[in-house]
Amino acid sequence: MSHVTWDINRGMNLPKDAKVANIVINKLVIVGVGLIGGSFALALRKAHLAKHIAGVGRSRQNMHRALKLGVIDEIAGDLPSALKDADIVFLAIPVGQTGEIMAQISPHLEPGTIVTDAGSTKRDVIAAARTHLAEHLENFVPGHPVAGAEQSGAGAANADLFRGKNVVLTPLEETSSEAKKRVTELWQACGARVSLMGAPQHDKVLASVSHLPHVLAFTLMNHISTEHRPEDLLPPDNLPLPNGPLRFAGTGFRDFTRIAGSSPEMWRDICLANREALSRQIDAFQRELADVREMLVREDAEALEKVFANAREARRQWLKSIT
Amino acid sequence: MSHVTWDINRGMNLPKDAKVANIVINKLVIVGVGLIGGSFALALRKAHLAKHIAGVGRSRQNMHRALKLGVIDEIAGDLPSALKDADIVFLAIPVGQTGEIMAQISPHLEPGTIVTDAGSTKRDVIAAARTHLAEHLENFVPGHPVAGAEQSGAGAANADLFRGKNVVLTPLEETSSEAKKRVTELWQACGARVSLMGAPQHDKVLASVSHLPHVLAFTLMNHISTEHRPEDLLPPDNLPLPNGPLRFAGTGFRDFTRIAGSSPEMWRDICLANREALSRQIDAFQRELADVREMLVREDAEALEKVFANAREARRQWLKSIT
Repeated sequence: MSHVTWDINRGMNLPKDAKVANIVINKLVIVGVGLIGGSFALALRKAHLAKHIAGVGRSRQNMHRALKLGVIDEIAGDLPSALKDADIVFLAIPVGQTGEIMAQISPHLEPGTIVTDAGSTKRDVIAAARTHLAEHLENFVPGHPVAGAEQSGAGAANADLFRGKNVVLTPLEETSSEAKKRVTELWQACGARVSLMGAPQHDKVLASVSHLPHVLAFTLMNHISTEHRPEDLLPPDNLPLPNGPLRFAGTGFRDFTRIAGSSPEMWRDICLANREALSRQIDAFQRELADVREMLVREDAEALEKVFANAREARRQWLKSIT
Repeated sequence: MSHVTWDINRGMNLPKDAKVANIVINKLVIVGVGLIGGSFALALRKAHLAKHIAGVGRSRQNMHRALKLGVIDEIAGDLPSALKDADIVFLAIPVGQTGEIMAQISPHLEPGTIVTDAGSTKRDVIAAARTHLAEHLENFVPGHPVAGAEQSGAGAANADLFRGKNVVLTPLEETSSEAKKRVTELWQACGARVSLMGAPQHDKVLASVSHLPHVLAFTLMNHISTEHRPEDLLPPDNLPLPNGPLRFAGTGFRDFTRIAGSSPEMWRDICLANREALSRQIDAFQRELADVREMLVREDAEALEKVFANAREARRQWLKSIT
């Protein structure tokens, strides 16, 4: 990065290197300038790979904030002008809105424009694309950056959000290798580790490491807050117990339920979008939980310890691998 | 605490106040000088309430460490001499060993010695006491300091571990009000909030806010590490995925499974000791999880969002109440 030119349009440093210049985006369109969309924009800017970034979004306040923070260069007035001459369109919207947005952009998409997305589930996004972007599948690259954060909105965007994080691409058979390569390079420029896999495999893996844990945390929290009747919670001296049983919850409980603080709307949509893989994961989990219950009832200390020890060891190995 | 005397025996500041002096312990015996036992000793020392502390434990190394760190004043050579003239005996041992230890101390207990414990489950501890301390129930105060930490051993002990934490006492009908009062005051002197409740209520509450979450975290971690076959984990380009699905697990998963890093032996014992309340909690949770699965399958967005939103709100209220 020692030889750079100054781009007066936006104050960016653009590298002279022709190979890098090949992947420079003349016009990037971000649909949904929230945490993910905004961070993608900032990361590509930081990598000197986006000359002009147009933002599309519903909240005027958020869009103005994005503009003010330099996340985007322009608030697009309408979709036809936003999509004109676009190199890349990045859909960073709730999965539940994917079909609707695809239907809206489809008539205005130019043939060479690459479309990619950030949806947490992939089979449903692909199904929506087959319906609404049927003429455009060659240039459609389904993707999922596996990076969450508790904040949302353009104000939370940061250029390093994807550094060291996984991005899964689940290309269709129709997806061209050029489009696949282009999107891969962009994510790598954001610092991400890119994996390619089939959409069903993606949805199964994410159901187990993300969607199922969220369902368990939400369900447990809901269970505890609804199960105990007030009269259960009176100690013998009849002093009321503030917060009922939660008064006795500790830091382990706080960490375990942290993901139950996530957006109900977003997780409703993710769970519904991935309901097939997720309900299979729930079934498998229910069977394992029933096994553990059986071990308890028959007082099988050895079997119980084996499950717990295997769990701890698997977690230890995993933590070792990521640190 | 402005008027204090200097105790040359141990370098403690003892308050002159006669009311406080009433609860000063001439001899405290800690059976199991680990995190909990050691922290109780240090907290009472800091509050100037323990003149002499004798430790009983199996690991020579840990006991010497406890002595060196000033957690205890003496490593008891045998139980008869340890229990001689003891005011308070604090059992801070794994729940699975409670019956055995009670049987060992019982023949040497003096009638006026108060016995209390720190077991995570209470009905089983009370059952053990009815068997092994039948002559001593008047001076037995079952207790549970709800304070965990990831470390263990005397080296992890700290005088402030119980500050602001809950301690639940589950006295028997036979327990004298003097013994109850004495133990309550000692825990309050450690900075803890003391609640009194029945043992069945304690075991139910702890099953829901502690034991069930541990079982869920262990079961999930075990499930993920055993469910995916190696061939599931090959992406289309046949590059192996290190760690299988866990490669795609994020910070939410890490927090959710933190408690699956707990001691398998300790949790085996806690779960077995509280197996009745815990298996009822598992049943109730399984019913709620089955309901959520049904909502997914019938695509009931509204019901799903209600569960998630209720969970988030309950957690928000709880966090607000503890901060």
